[in-house]
Amino acid sequence: ARPRVGYFYIGDHHAKDLVGDLFRKYQVKDYKSLPVVVHEHTTVYDAVVTMFLEDVGTLFVVRDEGVLVGVASRKDLLKVAIGQSNLHEVPVSVAMTRMPNITTIDLEATMYDAARKLIEAEVDSLPVVRCGSEQQLEVVGRITKTTVTRLVVELGSLRNV
Amino acid sequence: ARPRVGYFYIGDHHAKDLVGDLFRKYQVKDYKSLPVVVHEHTTVYDAVVTMFLEDVGTLFVVRDEGVLVGVASRKDLLKVAIGQSNLHEVPVSVAMTRMPNITTIDLEATMYDAARKLIEAEVDSLPVVRCGSEQQLEVVGRITKTTVTRLVVELGSLRNV
Repeated sequence: ARPRVGYFYIGDHHAKDLVGDLFRKYQVKDYKSLPVVVHEHTTVYDAVVTMFLEDVGTLFVVRDEGVLVGVASRKDLLKVAIGQSNLHEVPVSVAMTRMPNITTIDLEATMYDAARKLIEAEVDSLPVVRCGSEQQLEVVGRITKTTVTRLVVELGSLRNV
Repeated sequence: ARPRVGYFYIGDHHAKDLVGDLFRKYQVKDYKSLPVVVHEHTTVYDAVVTMFLEDVGTLFVVRDEGVLVGVASRKDLLKVAIGQSNLHEVPVSVAMTRMPNITTIDLEATMYDAARKLIEAEVDSLPVVRCGSEQQLEVVGRITKTTVTRLVVELGSLRNV
């Protein structure tokens, strides 16, 4: 933040404030990625294969009507995978974190809220949800630590354009 | 970035520039976490256990003298874990990404460089290294997408203090 022609030097304190301002203005709905979902009856083996094929670190687990029932991270699946279970028989629902213990983020929330939830809940990925019929959560996207890190890189690269 | 008493309104474009400025000023050496390392002869099973005990997503693999020889992510270990191998026999070196295919970050680099490398290399964690004896890399820390996300949250929380 050194002085440059055409800009006011505003000091570091205010510069830090602005990071929060920007992330509070950017909305989850504009930065979310596509969610990768599996059915709750999917086997752990097939869930891991889906994870590799889709190249994601977290799967969202749904019931027939697309209702969110759980989240399965690489950590969850790795825990089952090193156990004695037959991965072709155990369903992903055994390994996943279940509702209501899942941290979700609202479609209308800000990227700052999303970043804060990722840190506070100690998770890599948040399902972006909206309320479907009968007050059940429908998954419409995902926000991850990658989304936040990429946003920092994109903002910082403006200077080099 | 609405106008407030005592501050100049500087506009969104400059606000975005400042994100890059801040991250280019913050240094890896001030934000790095402790690295979690395992020896290259550790079994995949023991590596996974270490990962859970230390609660990290990535292990750095070293040779006797502490020289970095590889990086093992949850993804790498999960790939081996769903295979037919005996995890108590296979060494972590079979699963890891090896030097020179590892993306590292220098102790003297900036947090912006670290964020950019995390995105470009598509990894969750970077070993922070310095040159040891005989031009070999020594691991002295780690920077992850969590480090970057936490920094965003901390900067943004100043406004609420």
